[in-house]
Amino acid sequence: MGLALAEALLAQGHPLTVWNRTAAKADALVAKGAHRAASVADAVLASPLTITCLNDYDTMYQVFAGAEEALRGRALINLNSGTPTEAHAADEWATRTGFDYLDGAIMVPPPLVGTPGAVFLYSGPEGVFTTHRPTLASLGDPRFLGADPGRAVLYNTALLDLMYTSINGFLHAAALVGSAGVPAATFADLAVNWFLPTVVDATLLAQAEELDRSNYPGDLGSLEMNRTALEHITRTSVEQGVHVDLPRLAQQIAEQAIAEGHGDKNYFAVFEVLKKARAGA
Amino acid sequence: MGLALAEALLAQGHPLTVWNRTAAKADALVAKGAHRAASVADAVLASPLTITCLNDYDTMYQVFAGAEEALRGRALINLNSGTPTEAHAADEWATRTGFDYLDGAIMVPPPLVGTPGAVFLYSGPEGVFTTHRPTLASLGDPRFLGADPGRAVLYNTALLDLMYTSINGFLHAAALVGSAGVPAATFADLAVNWFLPTVVDATLLAQAEELDRSNYPGDLGSLEMNRTALEHITRTSVEQGVHVDLPRLAQQIAEQAIAEGHGDKNYFAVFEVLKKARAGA
Repeated sequence: MGLALAEALLAQGHPLTVWNRTAAKADALVAKGAHRAASVADAVLASPLTITCLNDYDTMYQVFAGAEEALRGRALINLNSGTPTEAHAADEWATRTGFDYLDGAIMVPPPLVGTPGAVFLYSGPEGVFTTHRPTLASLGDPRFLGADPGRAVLYNTALLDLMYTSINGFLHAAALVGSAGVPAATFADLAVNWFLPTVVDATLLAQAEELDRSNYPGDLGSLEMNRTALEHITRTSVEQGVHVDLPRLAQQIAEQAIAEGHGDKNYFAVFEVLKKARAGA
Repeated sequence: MGLALAEALLAQGHPLTVWNRTAAKADALVAKGAHRAASVADAVLASPLTITCLNDYDTMYQVFAGAEEALRGRALINLNSGTPTEAHAADEWATRTGFDYLDGAIMVPPPLVGTPGAVFLYSGPEGVFTTHRPTLASLGDPRFLGADPGRAVLYNTALLDLMYTSINGFLHAAALVGSAGVPAATFADLAVNWFLPTVVDATLLAQAEELDRSNYPGDLGSLEMNRTALEHITRTSVEQGVHVDLPRLAQQIAEQAIAEGHGDKNYFAVFEVLKKARAGA
């Protein structure tokens, strides 16, 4: 990912100094015009802005341990993932040490970095974002989420959560039709080219504002009816000999929402269950 | 749903005879030109094709118990949902009784029935589908899935599985950002208008053919890395005080795939886990 970020900056003509624990990893970048720094501190001192993308926050602290003095008065933008608590701690480290700090998240895989549709999320002091926005725009489409430094990693986590869940849903559905000999590619044509954008995404957009009002009118279908459908998916998974835990958990969540009095509301009332920690979980 | 089907047929000028257990429910249809039958057998005898949409297969057998003689030599298209086993039993009932039978599924909510994008799935003898295709096209976009009568309900189940899983993924992600005060509608704009179609759906389409080859190259990211991200989503859910079972199950599925030797492959290798019944499940 670091390589993709560096190449996007070079491609837009930014003067660039790079550092990596394994110096040889920067050879291709140096051949394209990047400067190679001998130390992290040297790399930081070469520019007003340092962009870092490491495995996690602990690695970031280790890497910058000898460069705190160099950071003072400059800016650091950190693109690794983590939790909001870790992002807040990093923001406090920056304040304590005396440099500008933005926490960010990259929402696309490396090959898409540098393309106009590549969404990058940032949170922290708005002035720091505004100052460095032109540079960040070379990496993709920078979106500012607000002053709370934990916001970018929280969005990142939520979007990855949505991604893994959606992929699992597709794979489990493909396993169901696959149990009767339907190729996944055949199923994908109907499921991904038609059903997800036309039915599912349209429903999500239509209901999103109602979620914020905890308003789940059941006039077009009730959670009781959805529970029947979910029980049905669980049973079909057993009959067809595929993995059953995903539909069974969805059924349990619907049953919990019904037990809490939402049976005559629409399916989105399960939001009331998902917003809370489960007792004993 | 029966009302929506009848209205779509009337709107396209089809002669229509209707029957409902509660006769008054057909009043509005009769006012628009439908004939009201006094019995199920009378309704069946009025047309070459009968379309039924009831709660389940058992209800269908009860409703048509006195109309088997009337069905003989005619066609019945059944749009209720159920399992492939139930669809096969219905197909055998039709063969035994001596009428044409198609099993179908409606993939849109009632307000969309009759619109060109409303997908209806059918399976059973292709000749029966071809004969009645012009009538079925008045209900939406009829798709024929093959001679196996269980195929339509299996697809229906798989698509609903995908729908509930995707909605749950969105709701859980919305709960995560909601725990920090972000409105669901704000999150939906990024998640549904950008992330799902651009990142997730594109990935599903790109990988679908590889699934059929059990080919999961890990060169752009390994399941080991995804497991870290999933552990991270679980931990963030706990930290933020939202429901944790969905990400925890996704993490467990990834861990099982790794335990089965797929750790250096890409995330889609969890398909190997989802295709099989879990021991003891």
